[in-house]
Amino acid sequence: MTDAPADGFRRLAPQTGTAFLLPRGARLTVVDPTGEQVADVFAVMADDRREWFSSGRTIDYANSTTVTTGSLLYSNRSRVMAVVEEDTCGHHDLLLTPCSQQTFDLLYPDLDGAEHPSCFANLAGAMAGYDVPPDTISTTLNVFMNVWTERDGTLHIDPPTSVAGDRLVLRAEADLVVGLTACSAEKSNNGVCKPIDYRVTPAGG
Amino acid sequence: MTDAPADGFRRLAPQTGTAFLLPRGARLTVVDPTGEQVADVFAVMADDRREWFSSGRTIDYANSTTVTTGSLLYSNRSRVMAVVEEDTCGHHDLLLTPCSQQTFDLLYPDLDGAEHPSCFANLAGAMAGYDVPPDTISTTLNVFMNVWTERDGTLHIDPPTSVAGDRLVLRAEADLVVGLTACSAEKSNNGVCKPIDYRVTPAGG
Repeated sequence: MTDAPADGFRRLAPQTGTAFLLPRGARLTVVDPTGEQVADVFAVMADDRREWFSSGRTIDYANSTTVTTGSLLYSNRSRVMAVVEEDTCGHHDLLLTPCSQQTFDLLYPDLDGAEHPSCFANLAGAMAGYDVPPDTISTTLNVFMNVWTERDGTLHIDPPTSVAGDRLVLRAEADLVVGLTACSAEKSNNGVCKPIDYRVTPAGG
Repeated sequence: MTDAPADGFRRLAPQTGTAFLLPRGARLTVVDPTGEQVADVFAVMADDRREWFSSGRTIDYANSTTVTTGSLLYSNRSRVMAVVEEDTCGHHDLLLTPCSQQTFDLLYPDLDGAEHPSCFANLAGAMAGYDVPPDTISTTLNVFMNVWTERDGTLHIDPPTSVAGDRLVLRAEADLVVGLTACSAEKSNNGVCKPIDYRVTPAGG
């Protein structure tokens, strides 16, 4: 990992999040600067917060539980919100919700209920600045998250396959409010939570 | 298939839906009277429509993309909404959204955009009577739906394995508004859309 992000990029410290407007035609580049780090992405329509990213519609219409170059991200009203313009990693997840305090309470018994940073709290906090209700933040696009399921439905979360510099580029197909995190769940990031770099490029930029 | 449902059961005609209150402690029994027929279930909390069934939380906390006897159904606020008391089939889905007009537009090109009954329209119509906004109806519990994914995320919808008389029983752990359909998508039901039988048993009944 470089000490600072590349020119034009911002760095999310480990276990933090942010939110921003991504106008139609603008691009969001998400970079894993160290490798093996997940970034959760959620989005709602800027002109109507009741229309939000639907992992289920995205899965349905592409017949796939992941995304890669060319994939379309759909809303709960079945409209295209964004397209994946570039993917250098190949493993991303559409099944899991952002880690929450309850995730740690239920799945990290060693924490004994202690407060823990979470993608849900980070998304809810950052997106509140754009009037996105926490209840809207449902299943996220989990960039660099390496998930697969057995035939019987048993789910596996393996270490991300991303290496330093891997990136996913989204181009907005509508005016969006986007939330983004450097994931807070140790077990999803091969034991250590690390930073995420990102850049917003204006339409035509 | 019998011509009429068993005593105490109601029959949903093919490609229709309904909604009802399911108070805490009450049971919903969903029966496939013919075999190979999917039923979509959605639920919201009766005391706050902003709290709704989250397939993602349900998947996360059980580490599984399906449910069976003993499974807990979670809300978007990570509260338990219902428990699966009995499952005689073994194949149900938590990944896919209810079929919608857009599902048919995108995935049934032979229909050439013609209007088609859908689980989404049936759920939205029935749940509107209980003040559930259509935008809330996201990924459903798809009872008897037989879905699996390859390691690369490619999704398969196979014919349901349910045989005539198979059932799933849910016990409400909170006061719920429930929507239920006999699924309208031919491809999910081995080519023919069939009825679904159901019964609501009061708490202590």
